[in-house]
Amino acid sequence: MHPSSHQNPNLYIIKIGGNVIDNVEKLEEFLTAFNGLPGYKILVHGGGKMATKLAQDMGLQPKMTNGRRITDSQTLQVVTMVYAGLINKNIVANLQALQCNAIGLSGADGNLISAKKRPIQQLKNQETGIDESVDFGFVGDLDASSVNTQNLTILLENDFTPVFSAITHNGESQLLNTNADTVASALAVALSQKYQTSLIYCFEKKGVLRNVDDEQSVITEINPATFKNLQDQNIIHSGMLPKLHNAFEAINNGVKQVFIGSADDLYLLKTENFGTRITT
Amino acid sequence: MHPSSHQNPNLYIIKIGGNVIDNVEKLEEFLTAFNGLPGYKILVHGGGKMATKLAQDMGLQPKMTNGRRITDSQTLQVVTMVYAGLINKNIVANLQALQCNAIGLSGADGNLISAKKRPIQQLKNQETGIDESVDFGFVGDLDASSVNTQNLTILLENDFTPVFSAITHNGESQLLNTNADTVASALAVALSQKYQTSLIYCFEKKGVLRNVDDEQSVITEINPATFKNLQDQNIIHSGMLPKLHNAFEAINNGVKQVFIGSADDLYLLKTENFGTRITT
Repeated sequence: MHPSSHQNPNLYIIKIGGNVIDNVEKLEEFLTAFNGLPGYKILVHGGGKMATKLAQDMGLQPKMTNGRRITDSQTLQVVTMVYAGLINKNIVANLQALQCNAIGLSGADGNLISAKKRPIQQLKNQETGIDESVDFGFVGDLDASSVNTQNLTILLENDFTPVFSAITHNGESQLLNTNADTVASALAVALSQKYQTSLIYCFEKKGVLRNVDDEQSVITEINPATFKNLQDQNIIHSGMLPKLHNAFEAINNGVKQVFIGSADDLYLLKTENFGTRITT
Repeated sequence: MHPSSHQNPNLYIIKIGGNVIDNVEKLEEFLTAFNGLPGYKILVHGGGKMATKLAQDMGLQPKMTNGRRITDSQTLQVVTMVYAGLINKNIVANLQALQCNAIGLSGADGNLISAKKRPIQQLKNQETGIDESVDFGFVGDLDASSVNTQNLTILLENDFTPVFSAITHNGESQLLNTNADTVASALAVALSQKYQTSLIYCFEKKGVLRNVDDEQSVITEINPATFKNLQDQNIIHSGMLPKLHNAFEAINNGVKQVFIGSADDLYLLKTENFGTRITT
């Protein structure tokens, strides 16, 4: 245990996705549980169906290159409106009604999270098998060094509860569309220097499942040794692997613990009886 | 002069409207001048053509009742997306590129500005002359008591530069569409207790004009006595009256000075040779 861990205050960083955002009752229950967590907390939210619907209403076609989704300037406008505007401000207004002093933020605000526009990449065309240049457009890549810990600490220690959309900026006036999971883990790693940080990924399942068809088969704890076993037995594979690699990456860089579970169960987090706990 | 005025730091509160926001070059020049102002500052922005365009793209018809524009729930969604999302975050990213530590906010964020949903009003139908009930929808009314001075002071004194869209909330999870001029004057009056506050309304003219067709005829200073004269001579009338009443209302409630002028000229504010100055 890190010698200062008894002194550092707790911080929860919780990421929610579209399945919570698009459901008014689920969102309300989740926000109530979020507000009930002790200590400092940060919420990171992804999008939802609204951005897709708005793009359709505006007559925009999803831009794809070689099977990959591209953020062109119009798509960036849509996600900035929906994520940083509509969703973010509604979550904030709901938290404020619960007496949680939420403050809605993009990475540009207070220069809290900067990112680099993803460089053009050489990727294999999925049909032809030939390498092609792919420009993902206004997509931002970032890591823990992108987080302005100083400004975030000011907000946290003055009892603001940051609510982040996954829109960031490059410091040269360009907004960028960023992956919300990555924003959450970058925040967690960066802030683990000052706080005992727990990172919680909420998704549509109750946790990492032993049997994907059985919601009761949640694996309550995974550490590097059991992770290897679970992979060897082919219990964890495909879609869950990147999430768990992210989780271990966070753990290996100072984050105290990572949980993966359902937003519906967040009220259980206080008892640590929530989803799957990933530890060292 | 107020005895503490030598100790209180200066604060500029500047309101811009659609004519600046819709013009990329004008906005950039304005933001450079804004960033060059000494001391604390707050930017309040209105909308622009984008909200109207987006509403059209979404197939929404402007809702009018008895000749008055109504904010129904879909219109509220549009203005939240455009004002609190797209415009706000683009301004913030542009200011950050100028090394100004802008933080984009709605009134819901940090509960900084609350408002009351405008009650249903009895208003004369403009065609029939008969009184009718008018529900303006999700429109917020507010005054200086709606401003959370404590939380705003924390942001200012930690070197954040607040950038407000005119979206507020009622504290019960409802966002509200609010008049940006009113937001700016409420902020100015509330913060004049802590700061020597200057309120600057930017509009499409160079100032209050003696002759509306002559941009060179700016009246450089108006006080209550000269205001009365200008009205008696019918030099100030119609559209300018509400702006000036607002300005004097601010002056009479602790604001040090109010300027009315063009955003293009903001760089002149440091010399106080900007637009029309309204004083006691």
